[in-house]
Parts: sequence; structure tokens; C-alpha cells
Amino acid sequence: MILDAHTICAPATSVGSGAISVIRISGPQTLPILDRMVSFRHGDAATAAGYSLKFGTVPDVDDVLVSIYRAPHSYTGEDAAELSCHASSYIVETLLERLCNAGCRLAEPGEFTQRAFVNGKMDLAQAEAVADIIASVSSAQHRVAMNQLRGGYSAELRGLRSQLLELTALLELELDFSEEDVEFADRSRLRTLLDTACSHCRQLAESFRAGNAIRNGVPVAVVGAPNSGKSTLLNAILRDDRAIVSDIPGTTRDTVEETCIIDGVLFRFIDTAGIRSASDEVEQLGIERTFRKIGEAEIVLAVVDASAPETEIRESIRMIAGKVDAKSQNLVILMNKVDLLGGNKNVNGFNNFVLNSDISKYKTKLLEISAKAGLGLDELRSTLVSCSGLASATGTLVTNARHAAALRTAATSLSAVSDGLDRGLPTDLLAEDLRAALEALGSITGQITTDETLGEIFSHFCIGK
Amino acid sequence: MILDAHTICAPATSVGSGAISVIRISGPQTLPILDRMVSFRHGDAATAAGYSLKFGTVPDVDDVLVSIYRAPHSYTGEDAAELSCHASSYIVETLLERLCNAGCRLAEPGEFTQRAFVNGKMDLAQAEAVADIIASVSSAQHRVAMNQLRGGYSAELRGLRSQLLELTALLELELDFSEEDVEFADRSRLRTLLDTACSHCRQLAESFRAGNAIRNGVPVAVVGAPNSGKSTLLNAILRDDRAIVSDIPGTTRDTVEETCIIDGVLFRFIDTAGIRSASDEVEQLGIERTFRKIGEAEIVLAVVDASAPETEIRESIRMIAGKVDAKSQNLVILMNKVDLLGGNKNVNGFNNFVLNSDISKYKTKLLEISAKAGLGLDELRSTLVSCSGLASATGTLVTNARHAAALRTAATSLSAVSDGLDRGLPTDLLAEDLRAALEALGSITGQITTDETLGEIFSHFCIGK
Repeated sequence: MILDAHTICAPATSVGSGAISVIRISGPQTLPILDRMVSFRHGDAATAAGYSLKFGTVPDVDDVLVSIYRAPHSYTGEDAAELSCHASSYIVETLLERLCNAGCRLAEPGEFTQRAFVNGKMDLAQAEAVADIIASVSSAQHRVAMNQLRGGYSAELRGLRSQLLELTALLELELDFSEEDVEFADRSRLRTLLDTACSHCRQLAESFRAGNAIRNGVPVAVVGAPNSGKSTLLNAILRDDRAIVSDIPGTTRDTVEETCIIDGVLFRFIDTAGIRSASDEVEQLGIERTFRKIGEAEIVLAVVDASAPETEIRESIRMIAGKVDAKSQNLVILMNKVDLLGGNKNVNGFNNFVLNSDISKYKTKLLEISAKAGLGLDELRSTLVSCSGLASATGTLVTNARHAAALRTAATSLSAVSDGLDRGLPTDLLAEDLRAALEALGSITGQITTDETLGEIFSHFCIGK
Repeated sequence: MILDAHTICAPATSVGSGAISVIRISGPQTLPILDRMVSFRHGDAATAAGYSLKFGTVPDVDDVLVSIYRAPHSYTGEDAAELSCHASSYIVETLLERLCNAGCRLAEPGEFTQRAFVNGKMDLAQAEAVADIIASVSSAQHRVAMNQLRGGYSAELRGLRSQLLELTALLELELDFSEEDVEFADRSRLRTLLDTACSHCRQLAESFRAGNAIRNGVPVAVVGAPNSGKSTLLNAILRDDRAIVSDIPGTTRDTVEETCIIDGVLFRFIDTAGIRSASDEVEQLGIERTFRKIGEAEIVLAVVDASAPETEIRESIRMIAGKVDAKSQNLVILMNKVDLLGGNKNVNGFNNFVLNSDISKYKTKLLEISAKAGLGLDELRSTLVSCSGLASATGTLVTNARHAAALRTAATSLSAVSDGLDRGLPTDLLAEDLRAALEALGSITGQITTDETLGEIFSHFCIGK
């Protein structure tokens, strides 16, 4: 991968209301370009020390404060600078124009971080973590992305990779002498290494479910009969002061969904149309859609009107439970409107119904709440957090679909090696699968990678990063 | 005005997409607070030089770059710092929390600039210019605000003020000896100073019309019969590449209006309902509203369908012209849809009609255009710019309603002194009016001011400035 020798510039702060804006510059001509366009009060940029600040004026535009960084001690590893000015779109545009006239070109999205990668300041997984950190709104998102940026994740992958390299060495030793038909490799050592590595890859790939939930929010479907109180419940959860509501524009989703952060975990609520036994064809279509949306959720909140007739309640619970995957989804039954009961109905009866019926096979919890009166909402919140299993999620979590795919490829290749050993396949065939696994792992941190992959990764960055 | 000794902090960049965020800190405890919350890679903030950058880590939050400024060489004149981190709302919030735990408090809107004012780093007019610079989107807005920030405006006011001080001295000399019934003051010198100062105040107050147009956009009303092509015209002006469309959320206006920048001047288009002679009461109400909107405009674009019958065209022009103030407004008649004429109509005839009728008393121009075919739009644009008179507006322009009011007060007080001289009023009465004028002028730059005025001014700033 070849980098052009251009000096690049881009706004590093978002436009909008604010007091200052920052423009980032990086490349070999950074300091001479600054000297061409800024009148510094003292001295010039070319002779300024790294990590120093200089005050200057860009004639007819603004006074600026310039931070000077000298290669390799900068974000990109190149000579670099940050130019801070008054936060006016006119000033920022004019300064970028002046920079371009003085010899810069506008940076592509992610180009600063791409240069940091190429110059060995960070590996690919760390570079990707930068984008995640910027997007993080919850403490769990931030914790996972920060672990990745600080290199904890990369270190784990390096460990895995060195195990595989050892495996390859063992196998290739055998390969070199294959014509002599000797088995040098310690097959039991080989088998142990292989199984450990394979299960490690699989475990990391599986952590993507949790990692993705942390990154994009835990999907929660709110399902129930019309008028069971779904909207009131959603508003009660979102409106509460303790739940910080935030809008995350969907990158992979069609619409902006309601999200909120509870105990540092981001939840994403999927609104659904009311369900009931319907003969009407149009209504039936809506209900089918709701059922499909249940499939996308990690947690299903089944909202039932506790003041409704018992048969209706049972029917409602059965209908929803029938669409929930007992293995991978959590079902939380919410007996809503309990404030209306006035002691006339035994909610415990439903608890027994749930426990004694088919529904007991689910990861199920039954809560009595009143969304309107604000009863039981704290318990609901802690139930959501404990169902997510993310509040205390430790260890390495894979949050990136690209990484998860690579880890799955590695695990599959390692399985193939394992199978091959069992079936006594020739060593050179085994070595090929091993190499495929190594390549897959290497692509995560960028030790083995192609220009297309890089282009694809960095094009998703924001300008200025 | 007393400042508390707190060290304050606030985000200085807007939230949203971006690569980095900056948090600003100012006050006597800035450096010890930083040392309490940041682990610096080398040394500490307390002993760091001013205008230096330090790299450090805020445990569990982020790596940060800290710019150190030492009093009085900072924006506020106090010890200050800027902390730059990854642009994540989670990180920014957490860092602000840590800063507050370490002894900061969150800054009020404008508090940094208020401290700069109190510490003599800038006067009040310059402080107000900071807010204007941040809001500027056109080069004319930027030029005027920058002149004010750089102190050109304040210098002019100081000159005016020293003339008035001289006047006061002359009068008070007389006052001291008034019991001896002697006229010491050189009355002709007094009269000259007075008239110069008074007309200077008036001229500055009058420049507010242009200054306000630059700051908030030149109001242009687009008026015409239904189907004369008003919307097509507006779209043609706004859609063109050369016209940068921007939305300025109204502070004094109810709605966001369509604006565009032509040759560095911001225009604000006022949409109106179609007008015609109507007997229908409801329609009549709409037309009355259009006529009122004409009153708000600086430039009235009368759009007529050139392919309509001549009597209709004349009627349309007469109707609109009747509502335009010949003294203060520009009337531009647009013969639209000329592409439909095919040489069948003599547009010059209307030119003669305009020239020979009552309408000639207006600042009028007649243009042939086709909004749909894109004919004559360049000429329309340059007509808008020349009607605004702002492209080359030089000299000091008052852009602030508070300043304009103070200048009008000063001019009125000086007129009263002048009148008093004519009528031979006692010197102590004259001196009182002079003092009122001085006070009004002093309030602009903050030499004479009250805490309420300051609170009012700085509360309109954004947080972090």
C-alpha cells in the first residue's frame, strides 16, 4: 500500500454551534505550508519545537492557535498541526481554501488514521476502534472500544496467531521431510494447540453477539395486544431522568429507533403493532410483521393488560411465547396496569401458569408493573440489564462484523485441519488450511491485508479522522 | 462587577460528528486540577510552560492532549487550558464530570468571554463581535464582525467619546464659574464639536440598517399574481451552484427562511401568497398579509407574467408598487416567462410605462427573465447585490441593536444640548444632557455599564465561549 506524499487537511470538529473549530493538517509540507499562510506573532512554524503552540493571524480571516507536532511524535506519525479558530463555517471554509492554495489537499474520510496505520502508529483493529470510540454514547461501548484501541484485543489476537505459527512450523517441518515418509510432528502437542486455538477463535466469534449488542444497542421488542400499554411503557422507560435518551442514526438499520442507556448499557427499542387473533387479512399482515420483528430482538417484553379476562391474558402470553426462540432470546412478561386490579385478581396464578406450562422452557421472568403509575419500572430496568448480560461483560468482545467473519473463517479452517488429522490427510493439505486460518487472523490487525480491505475500512471514517 | 474565583470548564466544540472534541478550562486552579485528573506522560501541568502541549491519559476515559496557557497570556487572561479528546459524547461528558470532581464548575454561556472582558483582554463591543464571528456564514458578516473584534469599531467610538469629553470639560469650566456669570467656553468651538459628534452618532446609528442586513440577511420579498412564477424563481435562485444556500435559524424571526449568499452578501427571501384584485374575503386577508410583508423587505421583487394581457400586467405592477416605500425600498420588476413571448410582445413598452408613470419615482429596475429557462438570472443576481449596497460596504457598520439604540440616545441627547445652546439654557442643564450622551456611548464598549447589561449580553453566548 502506497501513500502519496501530499500534505492533507480537514476539519476535525463538527460544524454547528460551538466556540472553536479545529482543522487538522498532516504531511511532510505541514510546517512550510503554515508559514506561507499564517503570520505568527513570534518566529515561524518550520523552526518551532514539537508539542508547542503558536499564536498567529491568517490575514483577513481569523486569529489562530496552531499546535505543532513533529514526526514521528504525532497521531499520524508525520509532521502535523492542528489549527484552532473561531467556530464559524465561513472561517473554516476560508481557512481550508487558504490551506489548499498553500499546497494542501483535502483529506479523504479516515485518511489521518490510515496514515497512522501505515506508519505503524496503530494496527488495523486499533484504527477501527477509533471510529467506535467516536461513536460511543454508553460506558459499555466506550469500555470495549477503549480496550481495542489500547491494544488489549490486538494482543490477544497476536497470542492466537503465534500459537498457529507454532502449529504451522510443526507441520511444515514434517512437510519438508515428507518424501522420507517420516512423521516428525508431535501429534498430541499438535492436537492440543489446534483445539485450544479453534475454541478460542470460536469463542471470540461468538462474543460478537454481545459485542454487537454493546456497540449497536441491545434490541428489545415491545409486544402486546392493542391497548395493553406498550406506548405508555416505552415512554415511561425513555422519559425517566435516569435513562439518557439518545438518537443513534442507523447505519445498518432503516430508521432511527428509540434508544436509552441503563446502567451503562445501550438498549434499542423495536416498536411493534398490537397483536391479537385476527381474521382481518390486513391486520394479519401487521401481526406477521410484528412476529418477524420479535426475531430481531434479544429481549422480548410481552406486555399484557393484567385487568383483562384471564383467558385473554393466557392467550396473549401463549401467542407471543410461541414466536420467541427459547434458546437465544429472553422473554419478560409484564403484567401491566396492576394499579387497576385493587386486589381483585391473583397475579401469582399467572406466575404458576408460566412456570407449569410450556413457557417454563424459556428464559422467562414475570413482572408486575404499571407503566402509567410508574410501578415496578426499576425492577424492569434491572431485569433488562441482567438479561443483556452486558453490565459486567469482561474479557475481549468482538464488536466488528468484519472481525467476527474473519474469526469464523479461522475457526472453520482449524476444524478442517482437525478433521484432516483424524482422517490422516497428507500434511501439505493440512498446512494449506492452517495458512488460511493465519491469513484470516492477520487480516484483523492488518498484518495481512489488501488495498481493497483498507479502502473499505477507512472510507467509513468521518472526515478529519 | 465581581467574578467568583472558581475555575470553570465547558465543551468548546459542538457535539455531532467530528474527529476530536475540545474542552476549555479557565481559572486559578486550572493547572492543579489538571494534575489531579490527568496522568501526563512527562512532568506535570503545574510546572509546564505556557503555550505548550502535554500528552496524558485520563484513567478509564481517554488519552488527551492538553494545551497549557498561563495568565495573562490566555483568552480569558487567567491560567487556562484546552483539553482535546476523541469526539464522543460519552467521553466529553465523563471528562466534564471528572473536571467537576477535581474542583471545576461548569461555565455559564459566555463566561469565558465575560472573564476576558473583566480582565481587560477585550472591551464589550469586541466581546459581542466574538458571538457574531461564530455565527457568520457570509464574507460580509465576517468582515464586519472581524473589524469589530479587531477593535476598529471601538477605536471609532473612543474618538467620539473623547470629543464629548472635551465638550464636557468646556462646559464644566463654565459651570464652575457660573456664579460669577461669566461665559468662559468658546461657544463656536463648542457648537462645531457638538454638531460633528451629533452627526457622527446619527450616521453610525443609521448604518445599523446596512449592518443589520449584513448580519441577518437582506430581506427580499417576492411578490406577484398567482402563477406568475414566484416559486420557480425562488428555486432557480436558491438551487444554483453559485448561490450557497444556508439555513439560519431565526432568533428574532418566527421561522427558518430561505437564505442564500450572493457575492458574499446574505439574502433572506420572504415568501408571499399570490396577489390579485379579489372580492373573496379570505383571499383578501391573504393579500393584506402579503402587503404587510412587503413592508419588511429592503428589496421587492415584483414578478409578472410577461405572457399575460397587457392590462393585467399594468394592474399587477401598479398594485405592488402602491405598497412599496419609494424612499427606503428598492422595487425590481421582473418580466418573467419571456421565453414564451416569441417576439410577439414589446417588453420595452412596459419599460416606458414604468418610466413615464408614477412608478418612476421609485428606485426601480425592470428586468426580462425566464425563471424556468434560466434566462436573465445573472443580471437579477447582480441587481440584488447592487440594490443591497453591501458588496463593497466599507467604514464602520453597526450590526448590534443594543449599540444602535445607544447611538440614537447619544444623538438625541446631543441634539438637546444643541437646542439648549440656541435657547440659552443654563450650563448645568446642558451638562446633564452631555453626560447622558457620554453614558450611552460608554455603554457600548463597557466603559460605563451595569451588571444587568452584562448578564443580558453574555447569556446569549454559546456555552464554552
